[in-house]
Amino acid sequence: MHSYKAFCFDVFGTVVDWRASVAKQLDQWMLDHDIQGVDAFAFADAWRAQYQPAMEACREGRRPFTRLDVLHRENLETVLAAFKVPIADISEQALERLNRVWHRLDPWQDASAGLYRLKQQFIIATASNGNIAIMVGLAKHGDLPWDAILGAEVTRAYKPLPQAYTQMAAILGLERREICMVAAHNDDLHAARAQGLGTAFVVRPMEFGAQQTTDLTPTQQWDFIANDFLDLAQQVGC
Amino acid sequence: MHSYKAFCFDVFGTVVDWRASVAKQLDQWMLDHDIQGVDAFAFADAWRAQYQPAMEACREGRRPFTRLDVLHRENLETVLAAFKVPIADISEQALERLNRVWHRLDPWQDASAGLYRLKQQFIIATASNGNIAIMVGLAKHGDLPWDAILGAEVTRAYKPLPQAYTQMAAILGLERREICMVAAHNDDLHAARAQGLGTAFVVRPMEFGAQQTTDLTPTQQWDFIANDFLDLAQQVGC
Repeated sequence: MHSYKAFCFDVFGTVVDWRASVAKQLDQWMLDHDIQGVDAFAFADAWRAQYQPAMEACREGRRPFTRLDVLHRENLETVLAAFKVPIADISEQALERLNRVWHRLDPWQDASAGLYRLKQQFIIATASNGNIAIMVGLAKHGDLPWDAILGAEVTRAYKPLPQAYTQMAAILGLERREICMVAAHNDDLHAARAQGLGTAFVVRPMEFGAQQTTDLTPTQQWDFIANDFLDLAQQVGC
Repeated sequence: MHSYKAFCFDVFGTVVDWRASVAKQLDQWMLDHDIQGVDAFAFADAWRAQYQPAMEACREGRRPFTRLDVLHRENLETVLAAFKVPIADISEQALERLNRVWHRLDPWQDASAGLYRLKQQFIIATASNGNIAIMVGLAKHGDLPWDAILGAEVTRAYKPLPQAYTQMAAILGLERREICMVAAHNDDLHAARAQGLGTAFVVRPMEFGAQQTTDLTPTQQWDFIANDFLDLAQQVGC
């Protein structure tokens, strides 16, 4: 038996397949702009590799809290330069459209159906480092029926800072033990457990493609270990 | 023709019938605790009358931003004393249950169906002074399919402060003219228009009961004037 009233979800990698979605849209964007020779998966990986360092500046207070849309844009320009993509003739509007590929990532196949089942009995909310506009875009794109968009822009703290987890409980008016953090990443669950939240590990073995070596198995005995959201829904009685 | 991408809603009075719902639940609570002689509508009105002064302290900076659940609780104790309700034997849990009547207010009859129609083509979000937990409770109780819970707890500003409106645009990544504020209260729309948002007036002639004298008609030529949410949905082409 458990006492959970809310399930709060990591999103990039756990709910949506960011890597294949970014690569697919990058390919189309490059085609639209007559740019050749860019490996879209390598570009997606390089863009994502800038993600943690950019947030780290905010976590450490070297920079005030800054929305991920802004960090993504700065990182995009770094990666475009690194890949020597000729952007002199590319309009600001086109660059911004490219930056917003993160608003239109495809969910994993089970995600929408699993969320609808969990929503019948629980509060379901995002607990992502992505900002609200990204989360709303993903929900519209992928039919993700969140009860609330929480996460970094609401708590003003990037995971894995403790307040990213503790503030969720305060905001929802729940005890920490009444909230279960759902993620495909062991480090996210480790940080959630350290603050007293429940933990659900959902394995996403293709997040980084067929060669993935990380997060293929749980590194602790998490409260739930599930193959996908439908499996999680069944385990919690939905 | 219009350019709106999001409709942001006032909630108390516009989406939900707070007065009749509070009165109904108050009656039941008084019955449960064997308390007699309290006029539930008068109590609801007195509780609500403390609402603006409580927020005003936060607006003016005399007090840091404080969630409405906390303000409601303080106001509740004031009103219980004013109505001479004997609470010496009432548990903390029971008082908190009473305070949370604001999480279980019934929507106006058209609200859920109208929101589902608007959601098909637009982002729909709350723009309430109520905190996130209240909004999530109301959404679960009344089947209100918000894309995002915005409002005071996210913007850290109580309406009608300008940043309560301008921050919504920044958060959604939209121009102010792409957002339409929906409210049953002319003063809310006046403040939204002053910041460049679109405006939709929905008349709710029973918010304060059959004797209501305020907000029975629009005081300006708002962008939309509607009888209910279904009428609004039709006017915007949903």
